[in-house]
Amino acid sequence: MEFHADPWHALRARCTPGTPREPRGPLDVDPDTKPGYLGGKAEGEATLEARAERLAKLQELLYANGVAGTLDEHGRGRSLLLVVQAMDTAGKGGIMRHVIGAMDPQGVEDAAFKAPTEEEQEHHFLWRIRPHVPQDGYVGVWDRSHYEDVLIHRVRGLASMDEIEQRYADIRTFEQELVAGGTRIIKVMLHLSKDEQKERLAERLERPDKYWKYSPTDVDERAYWDEYMDAYRAAIAETDTDDAPWYIVPANRKWYSRIAVQELMIKVLEDMDLDWPPADFDVVAEQKRLAAS
Amino acid sequence: MEFHADPWHALRARCTPGTPREPRGPLDVDPDTKPGYLGGKAEGEATLEARAERLAKLQELLYANGVAGTLDEHGRGRSLLLVVQAMDTAGKGGIMRHVIGAMDPQGVEDAAFKAPTEEEQEHHFLWRIRPHVPQDGYVGVWDRSHYEDVLIHRVRGLASMDEIEQRYADIRTFEQELVAGGTRIIKVMLHLSKDEQKERLAERLERPDKYWKYSPTDVDERAYWDEYMDAYRAAIAETDTDDAPWYIVPANRKWYSRIAVQELMIKVLEDMDLDWPPADFDVVAEQKRLAAS
Repeated sequence: MEFHADPWHALRARCTPGTPREPRGPLDVDPDTKPGYLGGKAEGEATLEARAERLAKLQELLYANGVAGTLDEHGRGRSLLLVVQAMDTAGKGGIMRHVIGAMDPQGVEDAAFKAPTEEEQEHHFLWRIRPHVPQDGYVGVWDRSHYEDVLIHRVRGLASMDEIEQRYADIRTFEQELVAGGTRIIKVMLHLSKDEQKERLAERLERPDKYWKYSPTDVDERAYWDEYMDAYRAAIAETDTDDAPWYIVPANRKWYSRIAVQELMIKVLEDMDLDWPPADFDVVAEQKRLAAS
Repeated sequence: MEFHADPWHALRARCTPGTPREPRGPLDVDPDTKPGYLGGKAEGEATLEARAERLAKLQELLYANGVAGTLDEHGRGRSLLLVVQAMDTAGKGGIMRHVIGAMDPQGVEDAAFKAPTEEEQEHHFLWRIRPHVPQDGYVGVWDRSHYEDVLIHRVRGLASMDEIEQRYADIRTFEQELVAGGTRIIKVMLHLSKDEQKERLAERLERPDKYWKYSPTDVDERAYWDEYMDAYRAAIAETDTDDAPWYIVPANRKWYSRIAVQELMIKVLEDMDLDWPPADFDVVAEQKRLAAS
C-alpha cells in the first residue's frame, strides 16, 4: 500500500522564521495519527520493505554520481542530510536500523551526537558538527544534532536566551551554507506523546533485555516534558525554511514513522533527478583490453 | 539450511608465522567451492536472511554490554573487528550491504581505507588505521585495511622488502595489542578467481548503470594478478595467528561468501558468551518514579 497523500506536504512544519508564531504551533499534530497513509501496521511493514529497494537504488545513484564527480546545473556536487531529533524512546534507533540500514553503508555517514565532551564544549557549538557534513555522493544521518544546543540547552538553562537566539541565527546560516554547497536537508522531529513514552519506558523496566536502554535520568527529563515541547516549537519555528524544512512525524506508531521518513528521503532523492553517470573511458577499447587481460 | 561443517574450521588459513610456508599455501582453496555448505543459491539466500536476525541480536548484546560498561574476566571491555581484503569485484560491497547492513548501524563503525592521502603517507602506515579501532561494545568493519601496505605496496614496489618485513612485524604487534585490549579480530580474504573477475568486470562494461564502478586501472591491476596472490600468501602466512586469524573465503559465489562471513561473525560473538547487563538502578523504585511522572 502506498501513501495516498504526499507525506512531505502533510508533515511539513510550515513555519516562517522571524514571524510571530501562531497559537497553533508546529507540534499540534496528533502523535497517534498517520497522515497520508490509510493502512495499518501490517500494510505499513510491507510498505517499508517494498520501498527499501527504491531508497537503496536512489542512494546508489547518488553515490555513483559522487564517485563520478558529476555536478548539478549550479556546478555543485550533491548530498543528502537527514537530521533526526526526538524525545527518548521515540524510535530514532528503529529509523536507523530499518530505514537507514536498508541503504549501502558504504555511502552513508552516520553520526550520533551525545553529550558534548569537555573539548567540544570549549568550541562554538557547530565545531563538532561540521566534520560530519556529508561529502558529495553521501547520505549523512544525524542521530541528534546541533539542535540539542537549542533544546536541552534552553530547557536546562545551559545557555542564556540571548545565546539561544544567536544560535538560531547561526543554525540558519549554517544550513544555508550546506544547501548552497549542494546538500539537501531533511529535518525530522519524531513526535511522541508523553503517555506513549511512559509505556515505552515501563517496558524497558519490565524486560531484563531492555534494562540497558533505561537510565533514571529518563524520568528526570520527563519532568521537563512541556518545556521540551516549547523548546522544540521555538527551534522549529525559528529554523524551518523551504531549503532546510522540518517535518513533524507522528511517532506513537513506530511502523508509521519509519515509512514516513523513508518516503521523505525517497522524495528528496527523486527530486535530484539523477542519471547513471556516463563512462569517462572508451567502453569498446576497455572491453578489448579486458578480453586480452 | 545450516552449515553442516563449521566454516571457521574449514576456511581458516592455518599458517604459522615465522615458519617456512608449505608448497600448498593458504590460497590453495578453490574459489568455486562452498566449504561446509551443501545448499545452493536459493538455500544460501534464505540462510543469509534467517541468520541476519541472530547476528543482529548478538551485536545488540555486545552493544548493550558496551553501554553498561561490563568487563570480561580479564577486566576488559569487548569489541569485534572484521577486516575484509579482496581483489576488485570480489564482493566487499555486497558483504557490507547484506551482512553488515543487517546489524544496527548505531553500533557499527565502518571504515573504508582508500589510497592514502599525502598527509597519511607522511606518517607510519598504522597512523590512519588506529583511530578506527572499535571502542568497547562496537563492531568495527574495515573495507581494506593496514594490509594494503603489505599488498599493493609489495606488488608495486612502493616499499622495500625490508620495510615490508618490518610491517609484518608491526602488524602482528598491533593486532596483539588490540586483542590484549579486548577486541576479537576476524580477517577475511574474499578469494576470487581471475576468470571470475574478468566476467564481473565485463558486466560492468556492458551495463551503463555499472560504468561508474569501472576504472581502466582495474585492467592495469589484473596484469599483476599473480604478484597479488603471492603478496596475499605472504601477508597471510606472516600474520595468521590464533588470536587474529585469517579466513580464506571462496568468493566466486557471492551468496556463499556472504553467509560464510556472517557465520564467522556469529561464531565469534557467540564465543563471547554475553548476557544482558543487569540493571544498575533499583527497578522497583524506578517503576514507581515512572508511574508518578
